[in-house]
Amino acid sequence: MSGNTFGTLFAVTNFGESHGPAIGCIIDGCPPGMPLSEADIQPDLDRRRPGTSKFVTQRNEADAVEILSGVYEGKTTGTPICLLIKNTDQRSKDYGNILDTFRPGHADYTYLHKYGLRDPRGGGRSSARLTAPMVAAGAVAKKWLAQQYSTVFRGCMTQVGDVVVPFESWDHVPNNPFFAPVANVAHIEAYMEELRMAHDSCGARIRVSVSNVPVGLGEPLFDKMDADIAYAMMGINAVKGVEIGAGFGSVTQRGTKHGDSLSPQGFKSNNAGGVLGGISTGQDLEVSIAIKPTSSILSPRESIDLAGNSATVVTKGRHDPCVGIRATPIAEAMLALVVMEHALRQRAQCSDVRVATKPIPAQAK
Amino acid sequence: MSGNTFGTLFAVTNFGESHGPAIGCIIDGCPPGMPLSEADIQPDLDRRRPGTSKFVTQRNEADAVEILSGVYEGKTTGTPICLLIKNTDQRSKDYGNILDTFRPGHADYTYLHKYGLRDPRGGGRSSARLTAPMVAAGAVAKKWLAQQYSTVFRGCMTQVGDVVVPFESWDHVPNNPFFAPVANVAHIEAYMEELRMAHDSCGARIRVSVSNVPVGLGEPLFDKMDADIAYAMMGINAVKGVEIGAGFGSVTQRGTKHGDSLSPQGFKSNNAGGVLGGISTGQDLEVSIAIKPTSSILSPRESIDLAGNSATVVTKGRHDPCVGIRATPIAEAMLALVVMEHALRQRAQCSDVRVATKPIPAQAK
Amino acid sequence: MSGNTFGTLFAVTNFGESHGPAIGCIIDGCPPGMPLSEADIQPDLDRRRPGTSKFVTQRNEADAVEILSGVYEGKTTGTPICLLIKNTDQRSKDYGNILDTFRPGHADYTYLHKYGLRDPRGGGRSSARLTAPMVAAGAVAKKWLAQQYSTVFRGCMTQVGDVVVPFESWDHVPNNPFFAPVANVAHIEAYMEELRMAHDSCGARIRVSVSNVPVGLGEPLFDKMDADIAYAMMGINAVKGVEIGAGFGSVTQRGTKHGDSLSPQGFKSNNAGGVLGGISTGQDLEVSIAIKPTSSILSPRESIDLAGNSATVVTKGRHDPCVGIRATPIAEAMLALVVMEHALRQRAQCSDVRVATKPIPAQAK
Amino acid sequence: MSGNTFGTLFAVTNFGESHGPAIGCIIDGCPPGMPLSEADIQPDLDRRRPGTSKFVTQRNEADAVEILSGVYEGKTTGTPICLLIKNTDQRSKDYGNILDTFRPGHADYTYLHKYGLRDPRGGGRSSARLTAPMVAAGAVAKKWLAQQYSTVFRGCMTQVGDVVVPFESWDHVPNNPFFAPVANVAHIEAYMEELRMAHDSCGARIRVSVSNVPVGLGEPLFDKMDADIAYAMMGINAVKGVEIGAGFGSVTQRGTKHGDSLSPQGFKSNNAGGVLGGISTGQDLEVSIAIKPTSSILSPRESIDLAGNSATVVTKGRHDPCVGIRATPIAEAMLALVVMEHALRQRAQCSDVRVATKPIPAQAK
Repeated sequence: MSGNTFGTLFAVTNFGESHGPAIGCIIDGCPPGMPLSEADIQPDLDRRRPGTSKFVTQRNEADAVEILSGVYEGKTTGTPICLLIKNTDQRSKDYGNILDTFRPGHADYTYLHKYGLRDPRGGGRSSARLTAPMVAAGAVAKKWLAQQYSTVFRGCMTQVGDVVVPFESWDHVPNNPFFAPVANVAHIEAYMEELRMAHDSCGARIRVSVSNVPVGLGEPLFDKMDADIAYAMMGINAVKGVEIGAGFGSVTQRGTKHGDSLSPQGFKSNNAGGVLGGISTGQDLEVSIAIKPTSSILSPRESIDLAGNSATVVTKGRHDPCVGIRATPIAEAMLALVVMEHALRQRAQCSDVRVATKPIPAQAK
Repeated sequence: MSGNTFGTLFAVTNFGESHGPAIGCIIDGCPPGMPLSEADIQPDLDRRRPGTSKFVTQRNEADAVEILSGVYEGKTTGTPICLLIKNTDQRSKDYGNILDTFRPGHADYTYLHKYGLRDPRGGGRSSARLTAPMVAAGAVAKKWLAQQYSTVFRGCMTQVGDVVVPFESWDHVPNNPFFAPVANVAHIEAYMEELRMAHDSCGARIRVSVSNVPVGLGEPLFDKMDADIAYAMMGINAVKGVEIGAGFGSVTQRGTKHGDSLSPQGFKSNNAGGVLGGISTGQDLEVSIAIKPTSSILSPRESIDLAGNSATVVTKGRHDPCVGIRATPIAEAMLALVVMEHALRQRAQCSDVRVATKPIPAQAK
Repeated sequence: MSGNTFGTLFAVTNFGESHGPAIGCIIDGCPPGMPLSEADIQPDLDRRRPGTSKFVTQRNEADAVEILSGVYEGKTTGTPICLLIKNTDQRSKDYGNILDTFRPGHADYTYLHKYGLRDPRGGGRSSARLTAPMVAAGAVAKKWLAQQYSTVFRGCMTQVGDVVVPFESWDHVPNNPFFAPVANVAHIEAYMEELRMAHDSCGARIRVSVSNVPVGLGEPLFDKMDADIAYAMMGINAVKGVEIGAGFGSVTQRGTKHGDSLSPQGFKSNNAGGVLGGISTGQDLEVSIAIKPTSSILSPRESIDLAGNSATVVTKGRHDPCVGIRATPIAEAMLALVVMEHALRQRAQCSDVRVATKPIPAQAK
Repeated sequence: MSGNTFGTLFAVTNFGESHGPAIGCIIDGCPPGMPLSEADIQPDLDRRRPGTSKFVTQRNEADAVEILSGVYEGKTTGTPICLLIKNTDQRSKDYGNILDTFRPGHADYTYLHKYGLRDPRGGGRSSARLTAPMVAAGAVAKKWLAQQYSTVFRGCMTQVGDVVVPFESWDHVPNNPFFAPVANVAHIEAYMEELRMAHDSCGARIRVSVSNVPVGLGEPLFDKMDADIAYAMMGINAVKGVEIGAGFGSVTQRGTKHGDSLSPQGFKSNNAGGVLGGISTGQDLEVSIAIKPTSSILSPRESIDLAGNSATVVTKGRHDPCVGIRATPIAEAMLALVVMEHALRQRAQCSDVRVATKPIPAQAK
């Protein structure tokens, strides 16, 4: 209710602050009997981990996950799974005058006015560090969905600042620090380097795609698959826009073009992005998100202090020049939580449903 | 849980089908003691009502709302408010062969595979007609928020198909059937007429703006103000994209530009769209949505029939050539429900919070 | 959230007041494809209906239910089922001075202090009349559970005031106006008649029993089957106590006696009342509830008026001398909603569970 | 949803198993700005702690609580409070043949059939040890309620097996290991000693009482104060019955006797137990619960093994001969969570309510 639980049937409750002793989450509702160990979770955390290249924050966290409960003899028990990640590099000294001022574009100001106090240590609860437990929880959901439906979650960067990144292949994504689906990232590196020297930051655009989603997931009117995806994506730190399928491009499409034709061999296009009427079609879920530039930058900014007077803010410390760079595994994980939730809901209400004719394939060849 | 309730503290449960006897909703959680009558609700329903121009469906519904409960001697009692809208023009004969086929871009296919059956009468539950009870519920929320905080909700069309509609003034919006903020809509009329003759449909882009939102509303991590807005907007029929503030434009903004400066006189810009860290800043909430072209069009489309064989679909009947035209009051209403929910949540958890310094004004002059 | 929705996966949202135009509910989450008509629901409503004997309120309501949505061509669609019951005999004139005073033992006083206003017409929202939509919703749940698991819900009166009613047979229950499981109810009639002449009221004890409940339903730690039953039962108007199985009798039982032995032929006793660790055992659910005497009685009572001064209250109008008499179908219905909820939850999380050995029978012969 | 979160606005999510590395909970929704440290929580945990007398399990746990998040510079931040209790004495060797059999009256059997597996280490998730985090969370709620309304929670044992314990004074409760409100507990000690020698266990009856509850808390129809209390109490391990106020005694009361008279000086009695129509009256909440005898006893019991064959079970290990003995602080804590939840709900919906006349005092002198 106070907004720290994601999902209902597969409910993930997140806790912790950037510079507290630990962060983590509790997963409630995981089906019992699934083999699970830290080794299933750690790889996704490692993909999100800071300190892995000079283009992300130099904070050095192992982000080692521990399973505190809910697994017995290597299998989930159906009871709450507590995942704990200890904070090990919570330096707090580098924050300049931000304790007494508000960073433009940052949650400093709103946290103070909501709660009456701020935890300035690394942004406290507003830090993107709190996405780590979600990546961990998402790994659990991914594993179950892979087992049940062979569902596959993939993401990549499609734009960073002014640099549009064309799609070449999913295979390139793990081979560069940007999650870019291209073989050669020299131009991205050059762009980021220029940005870093300018003490500035930039935005990014991320694409996430999910294959092998069963037809029929999503709960209209309101808990539509696409509505819940939008909720999940916009809830990620720094996200300012969400598109499904053709997204804003559908504004200029005509109906004769937008509506994806059906054939016995499959759908002929995927402007819908895998969702019609809020329910999955069986096609790939296609999601695109806009991420704003990091608000914590070295350049001086005009602001006010705690007393309400004018002030200039300079943010020192270790920050990502483009928070979008590490957003790909986060977006994948949140999407996995959405699909997991709806898979369970569908079993609850509709597991007796039988349709005379089989669904058509996702995509006509 | 099955997705027909919107909100938790101000919870609106929607029921009905396009061609059933009635549609409506129950509002649970409205604060007691607020004067309320049908006259507070009907004007917004009339703005959404079909049949008001030749550019929208010719279905002729009075959409007269009745308050069945929750109001005593002209005041809300704090108990559930049931709002009923009878269906009066539910002609079902005009649907051509769509009972046996699936319209490309329509929920026909997914409803069948989810529930094992379809209600083909006007799309049954998937009809945009089900937004009417939400407009009614939104009117109740708007009234309460106006009383408490002088909050104002406004929306307009900013693009229809290829026609970008510049913002001239909110004053023009009620004076044309498109909710266009311009004095002269001749070019829009011409565009729509051409579309209608071509038996086609088009998309649209809608802006919604909320003034006088108190600072501090929104529940991070997940029930952020912007996340809940995205959920609400993407849940509206035909919406494919949602932006807050600078939205996708923030991808190419630099941090020095995007972060809105603060001054004792107010914020200097509003790229944030009124939300930082998921919490309202006190600036106007600025939301933009993309609406896809109507899927029910007269042009023949390639599809399949119920047996899975190839078929050609032609949709007869009465449909909006651009569903975006009537979306403005719907988007306003859903936004009102989101703000209302968070206003109540804030009272629950944080009504004792006192901050030494007052919030800065929304906008520096 | 404001307490008018019962259940989550099978969610019933109740609306209306005793003397408003209509009462009803929306069921969200009913599995699709189940045959359903008013004829499935009306019999249970008729069992609860007032005016059927001189021992209950003489208010004469047909309590005819209408299905407004969620059923198409005689089958549930999986979308919200709205059930409407019009109020037809809402006489308001008989209330004496209760508009200006508070009835001892009645919700008058608390409603005013909670909401700042009262709807005095028949108790408004606090009236037991609001149980009628729950009886209707319970009938839907009963039908589905009967189809899936052959589950049977039965209830009877086991004590009325000082008269203990022994259990003879379920067959007698429908044959008398008290839901008494005995052939001869003359002594109950005499007791009630004496009470009526004395202008007084009395309490009652009701037993509800459910057979053919699958093993495994219930969600520990908190949404235990027995916890949710207690919540459902204590939420019925006038209920002051709830027992499962041996109930308060277990205080004086020893462990060697209380724990129900297991054998390959079944359980040897049922002190547990069908629940262990919050999860159904497969034995009959056995529930017993205490119902307080009606607070609206003709005898004068000491109280205060709206201004806070001493006053004497006499309640005129039509009231049940023992509200417990009509409580049996209500308790059955609420229990059906609890079991339904948990049946769906179990499908969501645990429908893949396979256990090597079959459950033992409910009861060893 | 899977039942491990208690409450909605003040939501406590519990995790862990009896013999895992740690147990704990996350509190989401605590109002910000309240001073809080481990010292506020530990005393209640110490009251519940095992190993403090020979009449409870000899498991020796420090039950030292750590606050992992949600508190900054000694004050709650309004973000999730994670409370961790490490398990330090999780001996698993003493369980005899219970791994292969089912204890009569124990959750062994139902857990296996629900989840398809069991965690036999100390009962795993079904252990009463999982009440410790709730006692910790309850201490946080108690502190906030004491600050806001001077609310006081008190509990005591009123019966143990056949021994009825009269109420002498709350002052005696902390001075004996039974939470008995009497000066001399020699007869209880003797009774327990006899029981222990007989290798048997017994039930108990506990009373909990809450003073200084504001009038107006509780959400009819379903989330009534008494319904939520019943849910909370019946959810405690081994509870089989719950009463509010006169409870089952109200069955034989007449209306003229049961209804508590009002006077300008206060209520004249409290048969209602502090709740009318599901809403608090301002009188003391009075709750009584029945606790069954411990199922883990040394005496041999008839049962079955995992293969479904007859077996005799003897439970070795360390168990409470009367689980009711340590139930008092648990019941207090759960009650505190219920009142806290409703206090926040009331602020959300009704904080503007003003009533012309002040509530009457709780109790006329």
